[in-house]
Formats: sequence, structure tokens, C-alpha cells
Amino acid sequence: MIGVFDSGIGGLTVVRSLMEHLPGYDIVYFGDTARTPYGTKSPETVVGYALENIDFLLNKGSAIIVMACNTASSVVAESAVDQFDVPIFEVITPAVELTVKHSKHLRIGVIGTRATVNSGIYEKKIKALSPGAKVYSTACPLLVPLVEEGWVKKPETTMIIKKYLHPLKVRQVDTLILGCTHYPLLKDKIQRKIGKKVDVVDSSTAVAKKVKAFLDTHAEVDKQLVKKGVFRLFVSDVTDQFEKTARMTLKRNVELEHVKT
Amino acid sequence: MIGVFDSGIGGLTVVRSLMEHLPGYDIVYFGDTARTPYGTKSPETVVGYALENIDFLLNKGSAIIVMACNTASSVVAESAVDQFDVPIFEVITPAVELTVKHSKHLRIGVIGTRATVNSGIYEKKIKALSPGAKVYSTACPLLVPLVEEGWVKKPETTMIIKKYLHPLKVRQVDTLILGCTHYPLLKDKIQRKIGKKVDVVDSSTAVAKKVKAFLDTHAEVDKQLVKKGVFRLFVSDVTDQFEKTARMTLKRNVELEHVKT
Repeated sequence: MIGVFDSGIGGLTVVRSLMEHLPGYDIVYFGDTARTPYGTKSPETVVGYALENIDFLLNKGSAIIVMACNTASSVVAESAVDQFDVPIFEVITPAVELTVKHSKHLRIGVIGTRATVNSGIYEKKIKALSPGAKVYSTACPLLVPLVEEGWVKKPETTMIIKKYLHPLKVRQVDTLILGCTHYPLLKDKIQRKIGKKVDVVDSSTAVAKKVKAFLDTHAEVDKQLVKKGVFRLFVSDVTDQFEKTARMTLKRNVELEHVKT
Repeated sequence: MIGVFDSGIGGLTVVRSLMEHLPGYDIVYFGDTARTPYGTKSPETVVGYALENIDFLLNKGSAIIVMACNTASSVVAESAVDQFDVPIFEVITPAVELTVKHSKHLRIGVIGTRATVNSGIYEKKIKALSPGAKVYSTACPLLVPLVEEGWVKKPETTMIIKKYLHPLKVRQVDTLILGCTHYPLLKDKIQRKIGKKVDVVDSSTAVAKKVKAFLDTHAEVDKQLVKKGVFRLFVSDVTDQFEKTARMTLKRNVELEHVKT
């Protein structure tokens, strides 16, 4: 199976993209809802949680893993990932590659959780590919609870987005990276507030394309993946709210399986 | 020592009240910041966390414990608390007793996290004391992240409070219980939006008074408590944000001690 994890609901936007780009592939998802959110916690704590989640997905038979969480992707070192036997994808590099390829003026905005922004990882990766790029980052910690509450269409959410995006608008960015897997659920509002001319890059789509490209060229991994269209959804805490938002995100019925952390 | 725990920062409003009403008493606090928040999680998960936290505080030498978290107080059964050897206080009963005593028309509003409101505990406890009371409850899940972000004075917070309080205003409540230990930090805004005539009851103050009254009449417990003014602050995750808000809440310097959950 393809194993995917996130602190909670956000990673389901990655699942949605994987289902679009790799229809029929079996997917197992783990949402760490008993310890969510990750974005306000320290790197050490998040690394510990992420490694536990990877172990869990391996035990469930994953032959490839996607860390569908920008916070985890920012703080888990490549060396930590390399110790595992299966390919492990993070969500940052694919978005960065896409951005650097398409940005006209290389004036790039990044929004994410406080942990992601504090890690400085987007700036580091963008500058490694394109040293002259200007990168402006802003932490938007309230967007995660707003999405989890289903406040996607409320005017208060619009106001908060406007406030968060203001410094990036002033800097006249030409591309904006949604550096948190929750944010695609607010994409319309974000696009409207940052302006039509700005290219909004969604890391969920970027990573799904990257995984597809990888499987196209790695038949030995691809053949290990079952393609019966099975989707299993594990969570460390079961709440009605999660089920509701999961159904809305995936536009299909879901059945939560509870696992203790 | 007096042991106090909460999912994160909110319980420090209880510590502040304890320091006012019982100056000089040693206090040990545990903020479960690695798993915060509790209010959006299921009762089973919160009960498990709460019992672990009580064990931790007992190991640190607590002779009396305050669950300074409405969510934990709502879902931990009295039978679970009775198994421990020390007196354990929850924050709900003191606020309910105060409310029923002072409310003129017994039209009572309650705001809290989703878990607290779903538990129906305030309504149950109010009606046990005063069967004719009318109780109107509203979950305000976004107020916790707004406080944790330090957005206490922002206009967006005012708008969100106004929206949450609207149904209670329509019901013409004469008393409003702040059923979450985070909310005292928003008390001014809440008082302004619900109206000057409404009595706003703060569970942090209510529980501190209750603990003081208990110690005044239970010398055998009181004599076990050291009064050297020591305050120890344990957290399961260390972040700058927590330290900042803790200093602001207690108006003194704090030193975080890290403990793994």
C-alpha cells in the first residue's frame, strides 16, 4: 500500500491528489488526531511523533510512505528518513521544484505553521535551486483550527487570511506556496486575497505528481503496491468532526479505524 | 504541594487565582502541551490523558490536585477520581454553585470547548441544584487557539466572540459561565459583547475559593502542604509561545521543565 500520515485532517488533501493521479492504488492513512496539531509544537516532539507514525504505516504493509504534513516534513532530517527500507516522500521538495520552475520574477511567498516557518526549510531549499530568489515567509497558525472547525466559508476566516497575507502582498510575490496540507481547503479565499496574478502552488498536488513520476520509473516498487482501490483510514482519536471533514474533503464515505498512540 | 494540570496554558489562570487566595503555598503545574488541546478530542482519549497527569502530579508529591481543565473535569467520572488517595478538585462544581447562588432569573449561559459542551455536565449539575433553571450552552472551539496565539486584543477575536455569544444574548441569559480555563484571558471582551448586566462567572476564581475553604476546614490536609512559595512548571513540550503566554498570565518569570509523555 501507499502509506500516508499527517497530524490530523490536512493530509487528506494529499490523499485526494494521490487518488486523482494514481487511481486504484491501495492507500493507508494515519491521522494523529489524539496529538494534533503538530505545527505549534517543538521540532523534537514532532520528530518523535513522525518516526512513530512511519513505524505504524510500515507495520500496516506500506511499501512507500508520504509524510503529508509540512511540519513533519520540515523537521524530520533526511538522515532519519534514510534509515527506513522504503522510499519516504516529504511534501516540501516537490512544491519547491514546481515553484522555482515556474516563478517569473522569483519573488516567492510561503505560508505555513509556526514550526514550518521557523524551520526555514522552504527558503533553504528554494535558494539551493535558485540562489537569487527572494523568499518571504509568514506563519498562519490560526488557519489550521479554522479549517478543522469547518469555518472555510466564514467572513472571519477571510479577515484573518487577509491579515496574514498582507506582508506578502506588500512584497509583491509572484508565487505563493501553500506550505501546509490544510491550506488547499482554503485555496479559493487565499487566491482571492493574494490576487489573481499570483500563482498559488499547492504542495498536495505537487507531491502526488512526484510520487506518480517515481513509480513510473521504479517498477520494482510499483509492483509491490496493490491496486484494488482499498482505502483504510486510521486515527488515534475518533471524533464526529473528523469524520465530517474527511467526508467533505474526499467526497466519499469513510470509516474510521481507531488506533492507540 | 498543590498539584494542578491542564491541557496547556489555560490552567495557569487557576494557578493565578490560587496564588491570590493561598499566597505562599507550593504549587506544581503540569501543562500537557505535547498533546494539547483536549477540547476537540474524544472523552475516552481525554480521560486517559487526565489519569496519566494525575499520576504524574502524585509522583511529584502533590497532596491535593486541581484538574484546571474544564474538558478533563467534564469527562473524568467521579468514580475514577475517588480511586486516588488525595482530594481531587474539578473546576465545574464551584462555578455551578456560585452561579446558582447568585443568578436572579436562573437563565444561565455556558461557553466551553466542544467536548465540555457535548458532555452536558454544566446543565446536569445546574439542574441538580436548581431544577427550574434554563441553561443554554455554546461550544466556542476557536477561542482556545486564539488565546494560545496571543490574539487576545485583535478585532477578529472580537468578531468571533460576538458570533459565538449571539445565541446566548438572544436567550437573555443573566449569568454566563466561562466553562474553559482559557476564557478568563478574554473576560473583558466577553463581558463587553454579552452586555454589562450579565454576570460573568470565572471558574478559575471559583475553584480557588473552594480549595481555600476546604483547606480552612481540613487541617490534616493543609499541614501536608509546604508553604515556601515554590512554583514548578512542567510541560510535555517546550515552546517559546508557551513561555511567553505563561509569563503574561502569571506576571512573573517562569522556568519550564520538560517531561516526556
